Amino acid sequence: MSANQIKVFCPATIANISCGFDVLGVALDSVGDQMIVRKTLEKGIRITKLEGQDLPMKTLQNVAGVAGLALLKESDYQGGFDIEIYKKIKAGSGIGSSAASSTGAVWAMNELLGKPFSALQLVKFAMEGELLASGVAHADNVAPALFGGFTLVRSYDPLDVVTIPSPSELFATVIHPQIEVKTSDSRKILKTTISLKDAIKQWGNVGGLVAGLFTSDYKLIGRSLEDHIVEPIRSILIPGFDDVKKAAIEAGALGCGISGSGPSIFAFSKGEVKAKKVAAAMQEIYQEIGIDYDVHVSGINMDGVRKI
Amino acid sequence: MSANQIKVFCPATIANISCGFDVLGVALDSVGDQMIVRKTLEKGIRITKLEGQDLPMKTLQNVAGVAGLALLKESDYQGGFDIEIYKKIKAGSGIGSSAASSTGAVWAMNELLGKPFSALQLVKFAMEGELLASGVAHADNVAPALFGGFTLVRSYDPLDVVTIPSPSELFATVIHPQIEVKTSDSRKILKTTISLKDAIKQWGNVGGLVAGLFTSDYKLIGRSLEDHIVEPIRSILIPGFDDVKKAAIEAGALGCGISGSGPSIFAFSKGEVKAKKVAAAMQEIYQEIGIDYDVHVSGINMDGVRKI
Repeated sequence: MSANQIKVFCPATIANISCGFDVLGVALDSVGDQMIVRKTLEKGIRITKLEGQDLPMKTLQNVAGVAGLALLKESDYQGGFDIEIYKKIKAGSGIGSSAASSTGAVWAMNELLGKPFSALQLVKFAMEGELLASGVAHADNVAPALFGGFTLVRSYDPLDVVTIPSPSELFATVIHPQIEVKTSDSRKILKTTISLKDAIKQWGNVGGLVAGLFTSDYKLIGRSLEDHIVEPIRSILIPGFDDVKKAAIEAGALGCGISGSGPSIFAFSKGEVKAKKVAAAMQEIYQEIGIDYDVHVSGINMDGVRKI
Repeated sequence: MSANQIKVFCPATIANISCGFDVLGVALDSVGDQMIVRKTLEKGIRITKLEGQDLPMKTLQNVAGVAGLALLKESDYQGGFDIEIYKKIKAGSGIGSSAASSTGAVWAMNELLGKPFSALQLVKFAMEGELLASGVAHADNVAPALFGGFTLVRSYDPLDVVTIPSPSELFATVIHPQIEVKTSDSRKILKTTISLKDAIKQWGNVGGLVAGLFTSDYKLIGRSLEDHIVEPIRSILIPGFDDVKKAAIEAGALGCGISGSGPSIFAFSKGEVKAKKVAAAMQEIYQEIGIDYDVHVSGINMDGVRKI
C-alpha cells in the first residue's frame, strides 16, 4: 500500500447513552465499516465504490463526500480523493452509520495529507456529513468514531470534546430491530421544553456516569444509565422496547437504552459472557414479537478510526 | 476530652457550582463552624449554647436539633445530647450555614455512639435540618460537609452520593455581600420548565466539570463552570453580580458563579496566590457599590466534618 492510499476501519458508535442526550457517545470495537481512500490528481471527491448498503454515490449526496469536501475547502492540497466504502453498518440503524463514513473519510484524508488538521477540525468536517444525514450537525457519534472510547461533547459553540476512559471489562450489546426510524422524525417528536425537576435528574446521572467511567465503578455506571427525558418519548417509536430493556436488565445488564435516535437498543454489561447472555435475552423478545433483527456484542473501541 | 464529648469542625460548603444545580457541592477548608456535642443521661437534644449568630435555640427550631432528633429516632441509644454551637458561618450567606450545623451534629453524635450509622444515613438525618432551614430537604451542602471534597448527589430517590476528587491546587474565593436572600425566595423565582437546548448545555457542562476534576484539567474545569439555567435568574437578586464575576475572571479565576442560592459569589482559581488576587478584585466591586462584605479564600476541605 503506497502513501497515496489508505484503508481504514470506521467504528460504529452509540450516541446519547441514556442520560447523555446530544453529548455522550462511545465507539464499538467489533462493528464498523471499511473504507479505502486514494489521492488523485483530479480535484474534488468521488465515491468510486459503495458496497453493502443502498446509499447515494453522488459526492454531494453522500456523507463521506460532503465531509471530505468540507476538509478540501480548508486545505491547500491541489488534488482530490477517490473513496471506496464497504458498509457493514446499516444506514438508519442508530449506531452511527453516517458518522462512520464521514469520520472515516476525513481521518483518512488527513493521514494522506500529512495530518495538517487537528482532531477538533476533523470533527467539524465530519459534522457536515451528519448535517446531510439528519439535518443536524451533531457530534455525538462523530467524536467517539474519531477519538475512540467514550467522548463528551461539552459544548458546540465553541466545539469542545472531552475524552473519558472506559473500564476494561465494559461490553456493549446492541440489537437492531429491522424497522425504520428516521433521525429527523425522532427529533421532531421531542419536546422543546422539559421540567427542571427531570433535567436535574438527568445532569445528576451524567455526572454519575462520567464518575463511574473514571473509577471503573460498574454499579455506578449502571445506576446512572437512566433517561428521564428522551427515552420515555422516543421508545414509543421502537416496538418491544420496554420488554427488551426489562429482559436485558434481568439477564444482568448494567443498564439499557436507545442507541442514538434508535431503533437500535444498547445495553452495557460487565464482561463479554454477560454481554452475550444479554444479547440472547434481547433477541428472544424480537423472536417472540416476530421482528427481524441484527445483534452485536462488542468491546469498547479505544482507538477510533484506524488504519488497517 | 472524654469519650462522652466531642468537639468538631463543620466546614462551609459551596453548592450548585454553576452547572450542577441541586447536585454538586464542595467543602471549604478554612471556613466553618465549631460544635461541642456531649452525651447526657437526659433523653432528647438541647442546644445549650449558640454563639456567633442570632439563631433559635429551641431544639425543634434549630437545624442541629432537628437533624439530631432524626438520628435519635433511628437509634436505640437511651440517653440524649447537649450541643454547643460556635457559628463562624453567617446564616443566609449561601455557603451552607445550616448544613454545617446539622451535619456537624449528626456526625458528632454518630462518633459518640460508636458509629452505628452509615454516611448515607447521616446525610438523610442532616437533610431534616435543611428541610427546616429552607423548606427543601436538599443534600448538596450536607453531602460535601460530611464527605469533604466535591460531591455529586446523583439521585435523591434512592439517595445516591458520589465523591469526586479535587485537584490539589484548586482554591475557592467566596465573597458574601451583606444583603439578605432567603433560600426559599430564591427557589420561588426559578422556572419549573426549561428549554431542552439549555438543559443539554447544562449536562454537557456537568460532565465536563466532573471529567476536569478527575483529570486535574483546570482549563476544562473553568470552561465547564457555566450556568445557562439558574444563574441568569438568581443573579438578579444579587447586586453587582455581573461586575463581580467579570472582575473575578479578569483577575484570573477559572470560573465564577453563585454559591448555593446566594447571595455569596464563589470563584475557583488555580493556586492560592491567584485566589487572593481574585478576592481583591471581587471586593473592589463591592467597595465601589458601597455594600459591606465578607471575603474568604480557602483550599478544598478533603475530610468533611472532623474532630478537633
